[in-house]
Amino acid sequence: MSVRQNVVVIGAGAFGTALAAVMALQESLRVTLVGRNPILMSDLRDLRSHDGSLPGVPLPDVLEFSAEPDAVSEAVFVLFAMPSQAQADAARHYAPYLARQAAVVTCAKGLERTSGALLTEVLERELHGRPAAALSGPGFAADIARGLPTAMTIAASDTDLAETLAQTLSTRTFRLYASTDRTGVQLGGALKNVLAIACGIVEGAGLGESARAALISRGLAEMSRLVDRMGGRAETVRGLSGLGDLVLTGTSHQSRNLRYGIALGSQAHNGGSGDLVEGAHAAAVAAELGKKQGVDLPITNAVADIIAGRLAIPAAVEQLMTRPITTE
Amino acid sequence: MSVRQNVVVIGAGAFGTALAAVMALQESLRVTLVGRNPILMSDLRDLRSHDGSLPGVPLPDVLEFSAEPDAVSEAVFVLFAMPSQAQADAARHYAPYLARQAAVVTCAKGLERTSGALLTEVLERELHGRPAAALSGPGFAADIARGLPTAMTIAASDTDLAETLAQTLSTRTFRLYASTDRTGVQLGGALKNVLAIACGIVEGAGLGESARAALISRGLAEMSRLVDRMGGRAETVRGLSGLGDLVLTGTSHQSRNLRYGIALGSQAHNGGSGDLVEGAHAAAVAAELGKKQGVDLPITNAVADIIAGRLAIPAAVEQLMTRPITTE
Repeated sequence: MSVRQNVVVIGAGAFGTALAAVMALQESLRVTLVGRNPILMSDLRDLRSHDGSLPGVPLPDVLEFSAEPDAVSEAVFVLFAMPSQAQADAARHYAPYLARQAAVVTCAKGLERTSGALLTEVLERELHGRPAAALSGPGFAADIARGLPTAMTIAASDTDLAETLAQTLSTRTFRLYASTDRTGVQLGGALKNVLAIACGIVEGAGLGESARAALISRGLAEMSRLVDRMGGRAETVRGLSGLGDLVLTGTSHQSRNLRYGIALGSQAHNGGSGDLVEGAHAAAVAAELGKKQGVDLPITNAVADIIAGRLAIPAAVEQLMTRPITTE
Repeated sequence: MSVRQNVVVIGAGAFGTALAAVMALQESLRVTLVGRNPILMSDLRDLRSHDGSLPGVPLPDVLEFSAEPDAVSEAVFVLFAMPSQAQADAARHYAPYLARQAAVVTCAKGLERTSGALLTEVLERELHGRPAAALSGPGFAADIARGLPTAMTIAASDTDLAETLAQTLSTRTFRLYASTDRTGVQLGGALKNVLAIACGIVEGAGLGESARAALISRGLAEMSRLVDRMGGRAETVRGLSGLGDLVLTGTSHQSRNLRYGIALGSQAHNGGSGDLVEGAHAAAVAAELGKKQGVDLPITNAVADIIAGRLAIPAAVEQLMTRPITTE
């Protein structure tokens, strides 16, 4: 009998729980979901469902749960599935318990607000240079957890590690494609949230589905320019983690980023604080990056300005629509 | 006072009427919508609305209508806006009336079923070598006609002609981007309809929005491979006429192609005859093209096989999901 490989997913929100649930069904893996709230973890273990985050989705019997940080100590693969701005703190918290050979993977989509850093850079900084991989792409937690077909990208700077992660963590319904372009994969994941807010603004303002499609198309070009300048590969942006995820987030009402944009666009209210909206954090950081790198990001800049209250929606639409007609 | 340039749009369906309506608002243009049904054309003139195709959208007073083929004779720009399989016949019908200097533009998205030819090739064949341009991209007739912001691509082999068309026919709300890649623009327009049927199948079969996003992302790669092989530019496919239109058609219930796919995927019925569904025509033609050119088109082939009754939906999903995991 072969020994199962230990996987730990840290972060018992919707996404982390979904990843843990789908991977637990893979017979070659032993999966533990780790969170800091002992009551939640004990409830999940007893109830085999996460009513707050994944209502109606049963969690597999073989999935294990722990609120103890040392639960990560036997893991070969450790997935950090908390929100982007909480990754640094989580890394510091669990660092003392990580096995020397453990591979770490960030599963959030964003940039560190204070530094503009990619989340693999954040993990590497907090974990004393341990190389970090990144999981990104179009996968809603509910779809993943329900065993619907999903495909995402996993990127590591080392080809062998990327392929090992893709092979090991893929399941029959959850397919991972390996990449070595961590910059492209992560910038795609972070920027698509900003563009999804733009899609929401277009929808909220009643501008139509054709305008949204044009926006997604021009947004992809915008993402490609920044990724290219930052040393990533533009073709990565055209894959699952950029385009695929942009399409999902920009067209599905399951997306928080889109809903936040719709609220902004309809001017029903100010969209709320946007605290749980990854794209609201990423907009200002990305706009700043674009300025620093000398890359033209008209849509990202407009979203950042709208969120900051510096630009009204009608003016933004006018501004984007009246850009000079150029060869595509 | 400057003389207005004459534009004729042939084809009084939803799309042709919408193009004529939006362009008529451009003060520099004099626009006539031409169709073969004298009763319809007279009704449109009297009622200033097209209740059958564009309900609730008023048509501008300055828009002219004609059922006479010689109405095209003064036009500098002639747009062919009938369905793809009707373009050849329309070209033969109006050929004797075209002015020598008139530029012709195909506005349909498809491939000729009998020959596999691009529609610009069809027009050029029927119009004795007169160079044809192609209009394509994400624009629903209702959105265009209502004056919502829309952006499309116009491609001619001659750069000057492409730019003239883009400058002349663009309006404040309807933006045209010039391209010289007629092959890429048209293959994108035809193939996206096939992929939209695939998106519908995924939706109809209840596979979730994440699966649809992954399909769009992999579908774009598939379109790019064929365009590249056929002498077009893969980057064109990533623009408005490929990606942008794929996103629109694959995610909006306004799309006939998507609705046809949903019917197939839900197996509620066989999807109907598919006669008005451009993608149903294009699927077999594109699959054939792929075989002839030695290009791997797994999604297109699956759609063609499903439409032909050679492949069941569950088998298709299994087949697409169990392809070997590769580097993206």
